[in-house]
Amino acid sequence: MFRHQKELQYEVKVDRPDPMLARQVQEVLGGQFGEMTVMMQYLFQGFNCRGEEKYKDLLMDIGTEEIGHVEMLCALISQLLEGASPEDQAKAAEDPAIAAIMGGINPQQLIMSGLGAVPTNSNGVPWNGAYIVASGNLLADMRSNLHAETQGRLQVSRLYHMTKDEGVRTVFRKMLARDRYHQYQWLAAISELEEKNGVVVPASFPPEAEMEAQPEAYKLFNLSEGTESKEGPWARGTAQDGTGDFEYVSDPKPKGKAPKPGVPAPELHHDLTASVTDK
Amino acid sequence: MFRHQKELQYEVKVDRPDPMLARQVQEVLGGQFGEMTVMMQYLFQGFNCRGEEKYKDLLMDIGTEEIGHVEMLCALISQLLEGASPEDQAKAAEDPAIAAIMGGINPQQLIMSGLGAVPTNSNGVPWNGAYIVASGNLLADMRSNLHAETQGRLQVSRLYHMTKDEGVRTVFRKMLARDRYHQYQWLAAISELEEKNGVVVPASFPPEAEMEAQPEAYKLFNLSEGTESKEGPWARGTAQDGTGDFEYVSDPKPKGKAPKPGVPAPELHHDLTASVTDK
Amino acid sequence: MFRHQKELQYEVKVDRPDPMLARQVQEVLGGQFGEMTVMMQYLFQGFNCRGEEKYKDLLMDIGTEEIGHVEMLCALISQLLEGASPEDQAKAAEDPAIAAIMGGINPQQLIMSGLGAVPTNSNGVPWNGAYIVASGNLLADMRSNLHAETQGRLQVSRLYHMTKDEGVRTVFRKMLARDRYHQYQWLAAISELEEKNGVVVPASFPPEAEMEAQPEAYKLFNLSEGTESKEGPWARGTAQDGTGDFEYVSDPKPKGKAPKPGVPAPELHHDLTASVTDK
Amino acid sequence: MFRHQKELQYEVKVDRPDPMLARQVQEVLGGQFGEMTVMMQYLFQGFNCRGEEKYKDLLMDIGTEEIGHVEMLCALISQLLEGASPEDQAKAAEDPAIAAIMGGINPQQLIMSGLGAVPTNSNGVPWNGAYIVASGNLLADMRSNLHAETQGRLQVSRLYHMTKDEGVRTVFRKMLARDRYHQYQWLAAISELEEKNGVVVPASFPPEAEMEAQPEAYKLFNLSEGTESKEGPWARGTAQDGTGDFEYVSDPKPKGKAPKPGVPAPELHHDLTASVTDK
Amino acid sequence: MFRHQKELQYEVKVDRPDPMLARQVQEVLGGQFGEMTVMMQYLFQGFNCRGEEKYKDLLMDIGTEEIGHVEMLCALISQLLEGASPEDQAKAAEDPAIAAIMGGINPQQLIMSGLGAVPTNSNGVPWNGAYIVASGNLLADMRSNLHAETQGRLQVSRLYHMTKDEGVRTVFRKMLARDRYHQYQWLAAISELEEKNGVVVPASFPPEAEMEAQPEAYKLFNLSEGTESKEGPWARGTAQDGTGDFEYVSDPKPKGKAPKPGVPAPELHHDLTASVTDK
Amino acid sequence: MFRHQKELQYEVKVDRPDPMLARQVQEVLGGQFGEMTVMMQYLFQGFNCRGEEKYKDLLMDIGTEEIGHVEMLCALISQLLEGASPEDQAKAAEDPAIAAIMGGINPQQLIMSGLGAVPTNSNGVPWNGAYIVASGNLLADMRSNLHAETQGRLQVSRLYHMTKDEGVRTVFRKMLARDRYHQYQWLAAISELEEKNGVVVPASFPPEAEMEAQPEAYKLFNLSEGTESKEGPWARGTAQDGTGDFEYVSDPKPKGKAPKPGVPAPELHHDLTASVTDK
Repeated sequence: MFRHQKELQYEVKVDRPDPMLARQVQEVLGGQFGEMTVMMQYLFQGFNCRGEEKYKDLLMDIGTEEIGHVEMLCALISQLLEGASPEDQAKAAEDPAIAAIMGGINPQQLIMSGLGAVPTNSNGVPWNGAYIVASGNLLADMRSNLHAETQGRLQVSRLYHMTKDEGVRTVFRKMLARDRYHQYQWLAAISELEEKNGVVVPASFPPEAEMEAQPEAYKLFNLSEGTESKEGPWARGTAQDGTGDFEYVSDPKPKGKAPKPGVPAPELHHDLTASVTDK
Repeated sequence: MFRHQKELQYEVKVDRPDPMLARQVQEVLGGQFGEMTVMMQYLFQGFNCRGEEKYKDLLMDIGTEEIGHVEMLCALISQLLEGASPEDQAKAAEDPAIAAIMGGINPQQLIMSGLGAVPTNSNGVPWNGAYIVASGNLLADMRSNLHAETQGRLQVSRLYHMTKDEGVRTVFRKMLARDRYHQYQWLAAISELEEKNGVVVPASFPPEAEMEAQPEAYKLFNLSEGTESKEGPWARGTAQDGTGDFEYVSDPKPKGKAPKPGVPAPELHHDLTASVTDK
Repeated sequence: MFRHQKELQYEVKVDRPDPMLARQVQEVLGGQFGEMTVMMQYLFQGFNCRGEEKYKDLLMDIGTEEIGHVEMLCALISQLLEGASPEDQAKAAEDPAIAAIMGGINPQQLIMSGLGAVPTNSNGVPWNGAYIVASGNLLADMRSNLHAETQGRLQVSRLYHMTKDEGVRTVFRKMLARDRYHQYQWLAAISELEEKNGVVVPASFPPEAEMEAQPEAYKLFNLSEGTESKEGPWARGTAQDGTGDFEYVSDPKPKGKAPKPGVPAPELHHDLTASVTDK
Repeated sequence: MFRHQKELQYEVKVDRPDPMLARQVQEVLGGQFGEMTVMMQYLFQGFNCRGEEKYKDLLMDIGTEEIGHVEMLCALISQLLEGASPEDQAKAAEDPAIAAIMGGINPQQLIMSGLGAVPTNSNGVPWNGAYIVASGNLLADMRSNLHAETQGRLQVSRLYHMTKDEGVRTVFRKMLARDRYHQYQWLAAISELEEKNGVVVPASFPPEAEMEAQPEAYKLFNLSEGTESKEGPWARGTAQDGTGDFEYVSDPKPKGKAPKPGVPAPELHHDLTASVTDK
Repeated sequence: MFRHQKELQYEVKVDRPDPMLARQVQEVLGGQFGEMTVMMQYLFQGFNCRGEEKYKDLLMDIGTEEIGHVEMLCALISQLLEGASPEDQAKAAEDPAIAAIMGGINPQQLIMSGLGAVPTNSNGVPWNGAYIVASGNLLADMRSNLHAETQGRLQVSRLYHMTKDEGVRTVFRKMLARDRYHQYQWLAAISELEEKNGVVVPASFPPEAEMEAQPEAYKLFNLSEGTESKEGPWARGTAQDGTGDFEYVSDPKPKGKAPKPGVPAPELHHDLTASVTDK
Repeated sequence: MFRHQKELQYEVKVDRPDPMLARQVQEVLGGQFGEMTVMMQYLFQGFNCRGEEKYKDLLMDIGTEEIGHVEMLCALISQLLEGASPEDQAKAAEDPAIAAIMGGINPQQLIMSGLGAVPTNSNGVPWNGAYIVASGNLLADMRSNLHAETQGRLQVSRLYHMTKDEGVRTVFRKMLARDRYHQYQWLAAISELEEKNGVVVPASFPPEAEMEAQPEAYKLFNLSEGTESKEGPWARGTAQDGTGDFEYVSDPKPKGKAPKPGVPAPELHHDLTASVTDK
C-alpha cells in the first residue's frame, strides 16, 4: 500500500516558460528510458520478487522514489508550458517568429492536455509496457536497472545543455545526482550477485547440458571484414570465469546445411503445384 | 554492404513438428530480447558508431552473426510447423485432444504466414524499433548489449525445458553457448571502458555543474517501510569511484514545496472560473 | 449495408491554406478522441448490440453520421495543405521564415500522402483499435460515448482558437454544435438507463455476492496527506442509490499481509539457490 | 513524494494455482481499463491539476490507492502461477490434458517474467499511455474516471464468474466494492460540477461564437433506416440545459458540396497529367 | 455523407457457435489485411483523391461496400460466440475438454466485449492506421489495393478449411467471390494506368535527373551465393518499358567508401575523449 | 549466414549538414515503406520460402542488398546531423531563426541517439513488424514487393525535391534507380507466376467450392451515388481470366437479413433484463 505527501522530493521552479523545452523534457518522462520506465520497472520487479527480502526492499525504496520523480517532471513541464496559448498558433500563421516556436511544440500539450505533461516521449509516442523488464532473475534485472539509469543520466545530461534556464538546470542536477547514485547502487548489487553466482546469466543452466556446444562459447567470428575487433580483450586471454580461452576465428564457415522446408498442405494455398511442376 | 551464404551457421533439424512450441519460440525471435532485437541493435550501433574502429568492427561482426541467428530461428519455426494444417482447426471443434493443440498455436502462423515464422513475439505482438538502443555513448550501449544477451540467454534457458525434442535442444544449446560468449565479450568491453572513464555514465558531464547536488549522489532513501535494504553494499562504504560515502536515510523528508501551477488561459477551456470561484 | 452520397454533410471551404494547422487538425481526425474514434466506436457498438432496437438504431444513426465527419475533416485537411510543396523544404534550409513553417508541419503529409489527411493524430501516431469501447453493457458504453463527445468538443474548442481563418472556424462551429447535441443525447440515454437499473454498473452483479465486502463500497481512504478531499459530496451523506453512507477514513491501515510468493522451480532459472542460501 | 508500506491493502490468498486464470486476470491489470490505467490516469490528472485543491487531493487519494491495487493484482497473479513450469510445456506435446492447460496460458508469463505479472493485457498487448486521459478540464476528466470505473467493475464482474476459487473471489469482491465506491464518488463530483457549469463541456466556449451553428445542436439525423431511435428522450422535448428543443430529422440532406481538391504540384508525383488529360 | 440500411449485404447464419473460430475470424476483420483495412484504405484514398472522378467514384463504391463487410463479420463473430460464458472458464480449471476450448478463445471477447467482435486481429493486437495506404499516386494505390485483396482472399481461403460449418462457409464463399472481383477490378485499373504512364512509379520523376544513376536500374546483384536467380526473366532481356537491358552481376563490388562520421560535440556526451585517446 | 564488407554499396557524401532533412529522411529508413521494411520483408520471405529455389535465391539477393541500403541511409542521416548540438536548443529560446530549425528537428536524434539514425519514421513512430508481409504464397508476396518498391520510389522522389544538396541528391538518384530495377524485377516475376496460375490469388481455391457464389465475382455495386465508375474497364467486358462478364449494378439491394444476435448469459452482465423488459 502507498501514501502520498504533497511536497515534491526536490524543489521545481523554472525561471521562465519554454514550450519547446516542455516537449523535449517529455523524453525523460515518458520515453524508453524516462522516469515512467524506471518507476514501473522497479515496482514490477519489487511486486514480482520471489526470494531475498533485502533486494525486494531496495526495489520498493527506489520504485517508490521514482513515482515522485514522475511527479516532479510533471510539475516541471507544467511550469514550462505556463502561458502557452492556442491563440499563439493563430498568430503563427502570420508571424514567422511565433511560427518558429509553435513549430517546435507538441500540439497535444495544448489540444489534448491543456498545458499538462502527457504520458508520451518527445515525439508523442505513448509510453508502453514493453519498455520495462522484470524477468525473475535478479542479476538479469539488476543489469537492466543499471542500463536504464545509464541511459537516463545520459539523456538528462544532453537535455541539460539544451537550456540555460537555471531553475530547470537545478532540477536536472538533482536528477543527475540521483541517477549517479542509482548507477552506484545497481553496480554494487551486481558485484554481490556476480560473486555468488558467476558472471554468466543464468548461472543455473546445467553445464552438462551445454557440453557439446561448449567450444562455441569462446569464439569471436570475424563476419565483418577487417580485423580491428581482434585487438580487444574479448578476443584473447581467458574468459572471466576461467572456463575457457577466447579464440578469434578469422574466416568462419557455416556448420549447418541450407534449409529445405517441406511443401505445405494444399489447403494453405501456396499455389506451388502449378508454379513448381514444370520448372 | 552484405553478402549471404546459403548454409546456416549451425545445423537445424527438429525431431518432430510441434506447432505449440513454434509459437513459444517466437518469443526469442521477435520478442523484446529476441534475435531480431540484438541483430538490429548491433547493426544500428555499428552504423552510427562515431569513433573507435575496434568497437565498430566488433559490433559489425556480431550484428552480422545475428542476422544469421534470425535465419536459423526462422528455419527452426518452419520445421516445427511442418504438417500443421487448417483442417486440424476444423477437427478441433469436434475433438478436444486436437482442440488442446490448436488452442495453443498462433493462428497467424496458419492464416497469415502459411506455416512460416512471423516478426512478432510469442503473443503475436509485432517486433518494434523501441526495443533497441543506440545512444552514441559506447559504455551505455555495451551495458545495453550485456543486458540483452543476459535476458536472451535466460529466455532460451527456459525454453530449453519446454521441449524434450533433442533436435530443438541442440539448436538451443548452440544459442546458449553463443549468448554466453556474448556476455563475456560485452563484459570485457565494459571493463575496458570503465577503466578509462570510470563507472558513471556519462563520464563527461562536468562535475562542477553537479556540485551543489553532490550530496544527493550517495543517499539511499528508505521510502518503503522496513530496513532490509540497509543491509546491502549500496548503503554503506564508499562509492565505487571513491568520490563519496553512501548514506542510508531512514526517514527521508521532501525538500520541495507542493506544486501550484497557474490558472491557464480561458481559451484552453479548463472551465475553472465557474467551478473555482465560490469554493 | 451502407450507401454514400457525394456531398458533404456541411460545407468545407477554408479561406487559405495553412499546413501547420493541417497537422494540428489531425488530432481531431485520428487522435484518441478524433472522429475516427467515435465513428468506429458507434459502429462497433451498433454491430455488436444485443437487445433493444431503439439503442441500436440510435448508434447506427450516429455512427453513420460520423463516417461523414471523417470525410469532412479529410476535405478540410486537403484544403489546408493545398499548395504545400517539397520545394519549400529545400528553401527552408536557407530561409528561417520558411523553416519556421516547415518545422511545424507533418512531413508525412508531404512524403507519405502527397497532401492528404493521414489516419494518425497530430504527432503522427497511427489511430488504433484500443481507442474504442464496445462492452456489451449499454450504460457502460453510453458513459463512454458521453465521455468521447466531451473530450472531442473540448479539443475542437481549443483548436478553434488556434486559427483566425473564418472558413475553418465555420466548420469547427458545426462540429461543436453536433458534439453538443451528442452530449445531450448520451446524457438522455444515460438518465433513462440509470432510472431503470440504478447508477452502479453492472447492475446485475448479485448483491449477495458482494456482501462481506460491502463496507468497502462507501469509504474514501485519505492516502494523500491533507484533508481537502474530505470537503466533497463523496465524503459525506448517503450513496446515490441509498444503499449506504459515505465514510472518510483519515488514517487508513492495510488489511492484508505482505506478500510472500514461493520460490519457483529451478528450470525457471531465477538463480536463487546461490544468492539466497547464505544471506 | 510517495511512501510504501509492505502490507497489501486487502488480503490476497488464492485456494490453488490456475495459470489459465493468471492470463485472464492480466486484462484487469494491464488492459485498457485495468488498474494500471486508473492508477496512471488519476496520478497524471492529479499532477497536472490546475485549480481546486479539493479535487486534486481527491485525485491523489485515489491515484495512490490504485498503485496499491496494481500491487495486489501482481500478488494475485504470482500466486495463480505458483508451480507452473517449463516442463509442463514439454509434457504437453504428449498429453492433451496438459496441452489443454498450456494452450490457454500466456507463454510470456513463463519465458519473459518467470512466473510474474506482466504489464500487458490478457492477450499480451503492452499497456500504453494512450489508455489514459488528463485533459485539464475537470468535468471532462471526471466523466472519463466514471467511465473507467464502470468498465473496470464490469470486467471484474465477468472475471468473477470465470473461477470458483473462493480466495480469488474474495479479492474480486473487494475490488468490486471499491469500483462501486469510485463510481459513486465520480458521480458526486460530476453532479457538483454540472450544477455549476452546466452539462455541456466545455462550458466556456463562447455561445455567441457558436451562434449560426446553433440549430445543429438539437437535431437527430435519421441516417440509419428505421425510426426506432425516434422513440427516445434524445429525440423529443427540451435539451437538458433548456437552450433548445430536440428535433428528429427523418430524411436528412447534405448541406455541403462534393469536395474538389486541387491538383497538387508536379514534385508530389501524383502522375496526374498523363492519366487525367485524355479521359 | 453516408446512409445505413439494416439488412446485411449477404445472409449470415452459422450452423452452430464455435468460440475458437470466433477468435480466428478476427484476423480477417481487424488484422493487417482484414476488412477494416480495406474499408479504411479505400475511404481514405477516396476522400483524398485529387483528380479523376471515375477513380474516386470507384473507390467510394468499394469503400462503402467494405463498411458493410465489417458489419457482416461482426455479425458472424457474434453468432460464433453465442452462448459462450464466463462459467465455462471456471469449469475449465477442472475439465481438460473444456479447458481445450477455453485455451483457444480470445479472453477479451468475454471480458472486454461481452461476446462481440473486437477491433483487433486473431492475436488481440488492435487494428492500426499504419495498415493502410493513401499516397496520392493512383497507380501506387491501385497496386496496394490489388495486394490487399490478394492477401485478403488468401487468408479467407485458409480460414475456409478451418471449419466444416456450412453456414460459415457460405459467408466465406461470398467474401471469396467479392475478393475475386476486387482483384479483377484493380488489375483492370492498373492496366489502364500503366498503359498511359508506363510501369514505373512515379512516372513523373524527371528522367534527366536520374541520368547518371541510369545503369543501376537494370542490374541484379548476386549478393546471396548460388546463381539460381540468374534463371529468371528479371536477369535477362529488356526492361518492360524498353529503356534498357537487364544485367546479372555475379560478383558485385561496393562503389562507396567505408563511412567515417565525425566526432560529435562534447555536450552530446559520447565520452569519446577518454576512450579514444590511447587506443 | 551473412558477411559484411566495410564499404558502402554507393558513395554517401552530403554537401552540408541539414538536421531538418535528417528528420525527413527517417521516413524512407524506418517508415512503413522504408528500407527497414523491404530488408525485413525480403529476408523473411526468403527464410520462409517453401518451394522454388530461383525465387528464394532472388529474395535473398535483394534482401541482402537492402541491409546495405539501411546502412547507407544511416550514414546519410549521420552526416546530415553532423554538428547539431544541444546548445542550439538553448539558443533557440532566444533566437527565432535558430528556433525555426530546432522546431523542425527530431529531438530524439539529439537526446536518444546522440546524432545517429533511429529505427523510426519521420514522426518518431518506431518501425514495427506489422509493416511486412510473408504469406507463403509467391504471387501474393511478389505483389506486396512490387507495391513496396512503388511506394518507396514515390517517397524518395518527393524527398528528392526537398533538398538542393547535390550530395544528398546523388544518393537519392542511386536509390531511385535501384527502386526502378526492383519494380521491373517484381513485375517480371509476377508475369511469370500469373501465366502459370492465372491472375486470381490463391489459384488453388477449389472453383467448385465457390460455385454458388460465382455471380458475385463479376459485379460492381454502385454504392456511392454518381455513375462515373461505370466508365472503367472493370465495369464492362470479360474478366481477365475469361471466366465471366463484368456487370454494373446500378441500384444494389441487400441480400441478407438484419442481424438479431441473441441475449447473452446473465454472467456477462449486459444488464439487459432491467432495461429490456418494459420497452
